[in-house]
Amino acid sequence: MSFSKKVISSTTPVIRHLISISDLTNKEFETLVNKAISFKKIIKTENKPEILANHEKLLGKTVALVFSKRSTRTRISSEGAASFFGAQPMFLGKDDIQLGVNESLYDTTKVISSMVSTIFARVNSHKEIQDLAKHSSVPIINSLCDTYHPLQAIADIVTIKETFGELKGLKLTWIGDANNVINDLLIASLRSGINVSVATPNGIELDPKVIKVADEVSKDNGTSYELTHDPIAASQNANILVTDTFVSMGQEFEAQQKLKQFQGFQISTEHTAVAAQNWKFMHCLPRHKEEVTDEVFYSENSLVFPEAENRLYAAISVLDTFVVNKGDFSK
Amino acid sequence: MSFSKKVISSTTPVIRHLISISDLTNKEFETLVNKAISFKKIIKTENKPEILANHEKLLGKTVALVFSKRSTRTRISSEGAASFFGAQPMFLGKDDIQLGVNESLYDTTKVISSMVSTIFARVNSHKEIQDLAKHSSVPIINSLCDTYHPLQAIADIVTIKETFGELKGLKLTWIGDANNVINDLLIASLRSGINVSVATPNGIELDPKVIKVADEVSKDNGTSYELTHDPIAASQNANILVTDTFVSMGQEFEAQQKLKQFQGFQISTEHTAVAAQNWKFMHCLPRHKEEVTDEVFYSENSLVFPEAENRLYAAISVLDTFVVNKGDFSK
Amino acid sequence: MSFSKKVISSTTPVIRHLISISDLTNKEFETLVNKAISFKKIIKTENKPEILANHEKLLGKTVALVFSKRSTRTRISSEGAASFFGAQPMFLGKDDIQLGVNESLYDTTKVISSMVSTIFARVNSHKEIQDLAKHSSVPIINSLCDTYHPLQAIADIVTIKETFGELKGLKLTWIGDANNVINDLLIASLRSGINVSVATPNGIELDPKVIKVADEVSKDNGTSYELTHDPIAASQNANILVTDTFVSMGQEFEAQQKLKQFQGFQISTEHTAVAAQNWKFMHCLPRHKEEVTDEVFYSENSLVFPEAENRLYAAISVLDTFVVNKGDFSK
Repeated sequence: MSFSKKVISSTTPVIRHLISISDLTNKEFETLVNKAISFKKIIKTENKPEILANHEKLLGKTVALVFSKRSTRTRISSEGAASFFGAQPMFLGKDDIQLGVNESLYDTTKVISSMVSTIFARVNSHKEIQDLAKHSSVPIINSLCDTYHPLQAIADIVTIKETFGELKGLKLTWIGDANNVINDLLIASLRSGINVSVATPNGIELDPKVIKVADEVSKDNGTSYELTHDPIAASQNANILVTDTFVSMGQEFEAQQKLKQFQGFQISTEHTAVAAQNWKFMHCLPRHKEEVTDEVFYSENSLVFPEAENRLYAAISVLDTFVVNKGDFSK
Repeated sequence: MSFSKKVISSTTPVIRHLISISDLTNKEFETLVNKAISFKKIIKTENKPEILANHEKLLGKTVALVFSKRSTRTRISSEGAASFFGAQPMFLGKDDIQLGVNESLYDTTKVISSMVSTIFARVNSHKEIQDLAKHSSVPIINSLCDTYHPLQAIADIVTIKETFGELKGLKLTWIGDANNVINDLLIASLRSGINVSVATPNGIELDPKVIKVADEVSKDNGTSYELTHDPIAASQNANILVTDTFVSMGQEFEAQQKLKQFQGFQISTEHTAVAAQNWKFMHCLPRHKEEVTDEVFYSENSLVFPEAENRLYAAISVLDTFVVNKGDFSK
Repeated sequence: MSFSKKVISSTTPVIRHLISISDLTNKEFETLVNKAISFKKIIKTENKPEILANHEKLLGKTVALVFSKRSTRTRISSEGAASFFGAQPMFLGKDDIQLGVNESLYDTTKVISSMVSTIFARVNSHKEIQDLAKHSSVPIINSLCDTYHPLQAIADIVTIKETFGELKGLKLTWIGDANNVINDLLIASLRSGINVSVATPNGIELDPKVIKVADEVSKDNGTSYELTHDPIAASQNANILVTDTFVSMGQEFEAQQKLKQFQGFQISTEHTAVAAQNWKFMHCLPRHKEEVTDEVFYSENSLVFPEAENRLYAAISVLDTFVVNKGDFSK
C-alpha cells in the first residue's frame, strides 16, 4: 500500500547518490577526477600521516557491495576503497542476496541501508538502481547497470589527465557498442573539454536519452561530438582510441549474431595509422581478441593497466565525496 | 576414541557461549539489552572518541561466521558488529565449509576456534550448535538454530524498550508458528516484565522444553503467559503484535500444507482493532504477504525497520559481553 | 604478441615471491620460523603495544586470496594474518574469478596486482603459480599448488621447534603419498637439521626434481634422508610421525584404486611402538580415518591442533617478510 510506505519514506533525509555522470555538474565531475589523482599520490608515495588520517574516516563502519553480476575490477576497487577509509567491505553476491526474490526490494533496501554506510550496487537494469536510490537511507553508488558506468568514466578521465595533462581540445574515439560505458564516458569527456567521435556498427545507435544530455553538455562546454558507423573515419587524428566488449554479460546467447555485426570494428594498426601521432589505447577490461589486436592492446601506447588501477582511486574519490563528506563536494 | 579426545578437551577453559535466552539470568539479559541501547547511542551520535576506543577492542583479530543457511540480516549485523570492534569478519557459507562432511565436526571446531576470536554460527539443528559449543575454545554465538534465536530476542526487547520506555505490564501477542523466534522471545519477554499471549494454529504447539522454562521464569518474575489457537482473542489489548514466517527455510516442501493450517493467521486490521490503542507491529523479516497485510506492515505503527536495525546493536552488545569481556557481565 | 608484453613487464621491479621452501636459503627459512614464533608470543600474551604497531603495517591495503580450491585452514590463516597487519583480506573463490577463463591470466594478474598488496594463491598446477609470479607486480604467496605447500612446512617446523626445542638430530618419518606437503616438508626438515625417512607405497615415488634439491640441501647441512616403501622400518626411532591425505582434492575419481595401494599405511600403535619414546604425531588436516587411527590421532602425543593453529603464525611471518618488508629478510 503506497500510502503507508510513503509515511516511512518521508523521514529519509535528502541523499546524494552516484547514478550517472549526467547527474553531476562540470565542477562536481572535475572535483571527483582531481580528488582521485590526489588520493593516488597519497597512496603511491606511502604518505603515512595522510593514510592514517583517512583510515579513521569510516572506521568501524561497513560498506555493502550488492552485486548481481560477477566483477573482478569493480569488486577489488570498491573493497580497496572501503579499506582505505577503515570501513569493512561486505560482498553480497547473487548467492547471498537476490533483490526482490525472497522479500520486496523496498524491504531489503530499507534493512541493508539501516546497517551500512553506503551500498555499491552492480545490478542488471537501470530501474533497479533507481529503486535502490529511492528507498535507501544511505548513498547508492552505481557500480554498473545496463545504462551507466560512472566509476569507469571517472577512472578513464583520470587516466587521460595523467597522460596528456591538458584535456581541452583532445579527441577521443570510441569504436564499439552503444553501451553503458560509452554513455557515461561521452558525457564525462564532453564535460572535460574533450571532443568525441562515436563509431558504432550499422543498426546500433546511442540511447536518445544520452544524446539529449550530450547535446546540452557539449553546447555548455564548447565541445563537440559526432556519431558515425565508420571506424576508420572516426579514428582520424584521434588522441585516444577506446573500445569495450562487444557482448555484454548476460547477452552471451546473442553473441554469434552480434559478432557478425561488429566485423571491421577490431581496433588495429589500420586505425592507429590515421590517429594522432601520440595516440593512446584504452579498454575497461576484460578484453577479448575480437575487440583489439594484441599489437595495439599490448603496445607502449596502451593505457589499459593504469586505467584499471585508476578504478581504485576513482572509487576512493567517490567514497570520500558521497559517503565521508555526505555529498558535499566543497569539502 | 572418546578417552583420548577428553584429554585434549580437558585443557579448554570454561567459556560462556550464547545459545539461548534461557541460559541467561534476568540481570544478564537486561545487561545485554541496555548495552545495545548504549552502543546505539555511541554510533548514532558519531561519538568519535568512543568509536576509536571500541575499535581497538578486537583489533587484528578475526570473527568467523559459520553459516549453513543464507541470511541477510544476521550476516550484515554480525559483520557490522565485528567491524565496530576492529575485528575482521570472515564469512564461511555452505560452499566454504560443511560441518561434519570432509572432516569431523570436532576437528573443524578445534581448528577454526584456535584461529579466531569467536564463531557466529547459523546452523540447522540445535544439536550442531551444542556440539560446536562443546568443542570450541572460543565463544559460540547462536545466530539461529532450529530451536533458538537469541540475537533476535535481544533486538526485539531493545526495540520495545526504545518505543515504550517501561516494559513492566506490557502485553506482547505472537500470532504464528511455534518456532525458534518465539521460543527465545517468550523467555526474553517474561524475563523483562512483559506478559505474553501465543496464538498458534491448531496442531502446532510450543516445545515442552520451552514451556518448562517459561513456567519457571514467569513465576520468578510475576509475569504471565497464555497459549491459545485463537489469534483474535490473543490480540485483545495487546501492546505489541508479532509474527514471523510461516514456512521456515528448508521446509519449503511442506509449504502448501502449512499455509492451509495458517488460514486466519494473517495479521490485519481485524487484530489491531482489538489491540491496545497505541499498538505496535513487529516482524523479524523477511516478510511474506500471507503473514501480515501491507496496511499493518507498512503502517506508522510498524516497528519492523528499527527492529531490523537493532539486530546490529544486539550483535555489538553480545560481542562486547561474550568476546571482549570474555563472558564477564559486570564489565 | 610477446614482444609488446615484454615492454610492459620490463618496468616491473624485482619481487620476492614465496613459491617453495626450495627457493629459500637455510638462513631465510630459519628467519621465517623464528619470526612466526615471535609473532605467536605477541598474540598469545595479548601484547597491546606490539599489536597496535603491527596493525599499522598494511593499514588501508588489501590482500587478495585467489583460491581455485576450497580450503578452511589456508583461508582462515591467511585472512587472519592480513587482519593482524591491518589489511583487508579479499577472498576470490572459483565463483568469483576463474584464472584464464574470461580473460588471459596475464591480464588478470596485471590488474589484480595493481590494486592489492599481495596475492595468496591456491591454484591447481605449479605452472599457474609460476605464471602468476611472472606477471604480478606484488608478491605471490603459494598457498598450495600440486607440487609445493611452503606455508604448511613453515608451520610444521614451528610446531616441532616449540615441542622439541632443539631440531638438530631429530628424525621425522613421513608415511603416505609423495605429494606437495612432503615435497616442501622434506626440504624444510633437511634445512633445519632434521633427518627424514619417507615411506611411500610401491609405485609411488618422490618427484625427481625434489630429490635433486634434497640431495644438495642434505649435503650442505650434514643431514640425511632415506626413501623406502616399508612404513614400519621407516618408523624406527622416529621422533615425529607425519602423514596426510592419501587422496588429494580433485583426485577423488582415482580414490578406490589409490586406497588399495595404501593398505598397511594407516599410522597406528604398530608404528608408534617402534618410534622414539617421546614420539609425536602430525597431520596437516583434514584427516580421514584410513590415514591414522583415532588412538594415535587423538592421543596426547598428537600435535595436530597446535600444528593447525601455527598456520596462522606462519602466514603472519610470511606476510611480514615478503610484503611488509618487501622480501628483505634482514628486517
